[in-house]
Amino acid sequence: MTNILFTAFSNRTDALALADEAGQRLAELGIASSTQLLDQGVTAPLDSQSLVISLGGDGTFLRSARLAHAHDARVLPVNLGRMGFLLEVPSDQIVTSVRAALNHSRVVERLALAISIEGESHTDFALNEVVIERPRVGNMVRVRTFVGDDELLTYSADGVLVATPTGSTAYNFSAGGPVVDTDLSVFIITPVAPHFTIDRSIVVDAAKTVRLVALRPAAVVADGTEIGALEPGQVMLVSRSPSPVKVVYSGAFELGPRLRQNLREGHA
Amino acid sequence: MTNILFTAFSNRTDALALADEAGQRLAELGIASSTQLLDQGVTAPLDSQSLVISLGGDGTFLRSARLAHAHDARVLPVNLGRMGFLLEVPSDQIVTSVRAALNHSRVVERLALAISIEGESHTDFALNEVVIERPRVGNMVRVRTFVGDDELLTYSADGVLVATPTGSTAYNFSAGGPVVDTDLSVFIITPVAPHFTIDRSIVVDAAKTVRLVALRPAAVVADGTEIGALEPGQVMLVSRSPSPVKVVYSGAFELGPRLRQNLREGHA
Amino acid sequence: MTNILFTAFSNRTDALALADEAGQRLAELGIASSTQLLDQGVTAPLDSQSLVISLGGDGTFLRSARLAHAHDARVLPVNLGRMGFLLEVPSDQIVTSVRAALNHSRVVERLALAISIEGESHTDFALNEVVIERPRVGNMVRVRTFVGDDELLTYSADGVLVATPTGSTAYNFSAGGPVVDTDLSVFIITPVAPHFTIDRSIVVDAAKTVRLVALRPAAVVADGTEIGALEPGQVMLVSRSPSPVKVVYSGAFELGPRLRQNLREGHA
Amino acid sequence: MTNILFTAFSNRTDALALADEAGQRLAELGIASSTQLLDQGVTAPLDSQSLVISLGGDGTFLRSARLAHAHDARVLPVNLGRMGFLLEVPSDQIVTSVRAALNHSRVVERLALAISIEGESHTDFALNEVVIERPRVGNMVRVRTFVGDDELLTYSADGVLVATPTGSTAYNFSAGGPVVDTDLSVFIITPVAPHFTIDRSIVVDAAKTVRLVALRPAAVVADGTEIGALEPGQVMLVSRSPSPVKVVYSGAFELGPRLRQNLREGHA
Repeated sequence: MTNILFTAFSNRTDALALADEAGQRLAELGIASSTQLLDQGVTAPLDSQSLVISLGGDGTFLRSARLAHAHDARVLPVNLGRMGFLLEVPSDQIVTSVRAALNHSRVVERLALAISIEGESHTDFALNEVVIERPRVGNMVRVRTFVGDDELLTYSADGVLVATPTGSTAYNFSAGGPVVDTDLSVFIITPVAPHFTIDRSIVVDAAKTVRLVALRPAAVVADGTEIGALEPGQVMLVSRSPSPVKVVYSGAFELGPRLRQNLREGHA
Repeated sequence: MTNILFTAFSNRTDALALADEAGQRLAELGIASSTQLLDQGVTAPLDSQSLVISLGGDGTFLRSARLAHAHDARVLPVNLGRMGFLLEVPSDQIVTSVRAALNHSRVVERLALAISIEGESHTDFALNEVVIERPRVGNMVRVRTFVGDDELLTYSADGVLVATPTGSTAYNFSAGGPVVDTDLSVFIITPVAPHFTIDRSIVVDAAKTVRLVALRPAAVVADGTEIGALEPGQVMLVSRSPSPVKVVYSGAFELGPRLRQNLREGHA
Repeated sequence: MTNILFTAFSNRTDALALADEAGQRLAELGIASSTQLLDQGVTAPLDSQSLVISLGGDGTFLRSARLAHAHDARVLPVNLGRMGFLLEVPSDQIVTSVRAALNHSRVVERLALAISIEGESHTDFALNEVVIERPRVGNMVRVRTFVGDDELLTYSADGVLVATPTGSTAYNFSAGGPVVDTDLSVFIITPVAPHFTIDRSIVVDAAKTVRLVALRPAAVVADGTEIGALEPGQVMLVSRSPSPVKVVYSGAFELGPRLRQNLREGHA
Repeated sequence: MTNILFTAFSNRTDALALADEAGQRLAELGIASSTQLLDQGVTAPLDSQSLVISLGGDGTFLRSARLAHAHDARVLPVNLGRMGFLLEVPSDQIVTSVRAALNHSRVVERLALAISIEGESHTDFALNEVVIERPRVGNMVRVRTFVGDDELLTYSADGVLVATPTGSTAYNFSAGGPVVDTDLSVFIITPVAPHFTIDRSIVVDAAKTVRLVALRPAAVVADGTEIGALEPGQVMLVSRSPSPVKVVYSGAFELGPRLRQNLREGHA
């Protein structure tokens, strides 16, 4: 049976109130649910039958997607944020969307990154992007980049990121990278504020492994969260996660209207 | 039996001398060949067994590839130009490369564009890119863009181009677009000098059709050659050509070294 | 006595109706005026006491400013266009603005370009920018640039432009150049879609002369109008026009709100 | 009498050896000098007659210039770095340059920034740029910008910088800003990786005050060194330092060759 879990950050009282209200309405329909605060230790049991309902903005969704991905569960993104490329469900349609998800709703698979840092045993995850960036203000990283066996460019920059198509409209976009159709299985390599080097992105097949070598100390940041550090010479590998993020799809994802809306609001 | 055709522009005396010399050496090996001037009416018979050997720079290769593509022939790019992303064979390795091509050599398939202008019966071709651009100096085009049924952005710009991965390092790159791995089956939509609009590229699946609607009179340019014009409201469709360009592969195509070389020479 | 001249393009019937109406209201106040169609031979006498009232969009204003500048007359920009960085006066405030201009109104001086092409005896003018650009579609220009005696970069590009601060939000902006405060006496050198060269603008003191050498045939375009051509090796000099354009100032020119408005409308 | 001070970082043994050797040769000429390690407390007395000789790369020069500026002393930049837009004197010409500086040598004045953070009593200094940036990885700043009384744009970004013309080829350049002639008295406002906002620089008269309001917690970094922090709502003012940096000039500063050299080395 499907295990339903609302996720939110503890300081979002609007999200918590919404979880309460939707939980009651689901209970009236005989559907049990619980709530998990993302900034406290996760205790709820999850499996591939679970449905994680993200209540918040893009940051909440990224954390919820990570949680769901770890258990092969589905995630349903409810938009309580201002802008949101990722978010499909208005808050007044939660119950309808949950019921649709429990029955027949389509799931779209989003490519995610498997990140492994040389010398560490575990593999990390990102839905948007992983960045090798300067560990503190006023510095630069220096990073050699490889795709498969082909050496590409070496960047001196604030950072070098590898983004998924889902992440193409996030940090990659701010750094000057292209918008990429989420149907495509590609990685986007984009430098952030590169010093006297090409500032253009390189788009490569996600079947290949991207290898990044830090030539100076650097921080590693996945979906906005610091996950590690690199010493000079240390290698980070980025490949396609064997399992994608499974997002409950509830209506047309139209790139054009979203782009236009975000561009207009960006200048507000 | 393989029909071997050297192609060059008539003002490239170095290319013609090279064709003569290589032709004699091939004759000594019992291999017949002929030469075709690209700027004069093409008369040589070609079929899918033919091998077109392009002698010149990128412009020569684009014309030779168009010729080869029309007959499903293979093309072998010999580099007599200064810079060349497309060109693999140094001029002193022609005979070796031809012999390899006649025997066992690997062919790589490069995605090409099928271009159709509303109201015209034929379909046009491009290996690098097709551009909707202002018909004369001092103007702008205005172009609505669609991918499948999804409307993307409307640009006021000098031009709007749709590039292949092969063309990503050509005009697309000058206009700010990303470098794209030639293994990928994608289109890159890039505006040229857009006026108060997003100047970012959009990368989409080449299985989809890109539809461009000119809102002002515009010229249509494929691989640097004007192929038509659009009246306000007229539509141009861009899709993947059913047959790719078949390029004889003679050594590793390494994106990194080529990028670095072109970037260094660009500033010379 | 002040000579008042409305200027408009003949196909803008709204502008002509407005000129009629405003002319009648001025006549009732004892102020004579006439109308000049910009796309027909200019016949009206003008001198430094004249006031040219531009009725249209940016294109109309550029032509009117050129006309006024040639006679050291003032120009009052009335905005009938959609977007307009240059235009200050709403159409319903024409009579008020004319009366203010006749009495006490402040004039702001806008830096203009003096353009001279080697081998030609006259000097040309631009308020926004002058561009060396490819004479036809599908080509590139190649241009060496100098500022005073200092050789800067050589560009292969669609074009290379020299803009004034007034023109910084026009074609310069589309080509990626910076916004520059109109109080500054500087030139902005910006390449348009440069091929494997730096795509950054260079801002220099307008007290210096910018020298551009065409290495391939090129067209010269000033404020959107073709004014000449360059043969390989031919030189074009750009310096500050000895006399600025005198714009009647009617209210605060606020860069910020105009930028935000144009950016929002750009994505509409 | 002129007080001569060599400055270097303590880990640059090449610089320290050079200071020794040049000091001995100057002593033979009857000229006294001493050496100051920049990363240890500065103890040497300095006044407007002093000559600071910077031995290192751009970072050393920025620190030496700050030291010299505080005492209205001159600074002579000796280039021991790889790339250096700021550095004029090759290491084998130190003694010649010092003697020239002691006699007749020309001094160029470089515009510097006076930075004051609301609520702090002192004014800070920068020769290249000041940046309001995210205090830790994975965050963004949000900054409102004003020039005089005119509100410009509000940026969500990795950072927002105000650069001098000297700094235009440093971090400003990496972030996409224009190159600006060091003769000009202007500031360049450039966002770093702005999110869905204009990524273009704005160039304004340095006679005006730039006011930046942090809407989220931020770090303040001047010439690569963290100098403070901003709380939400806190204001930072940037104006032209009343006294410029006085750089001993020893040969032509040619922007073009330096740009070309740096661009080539950038891709090496």
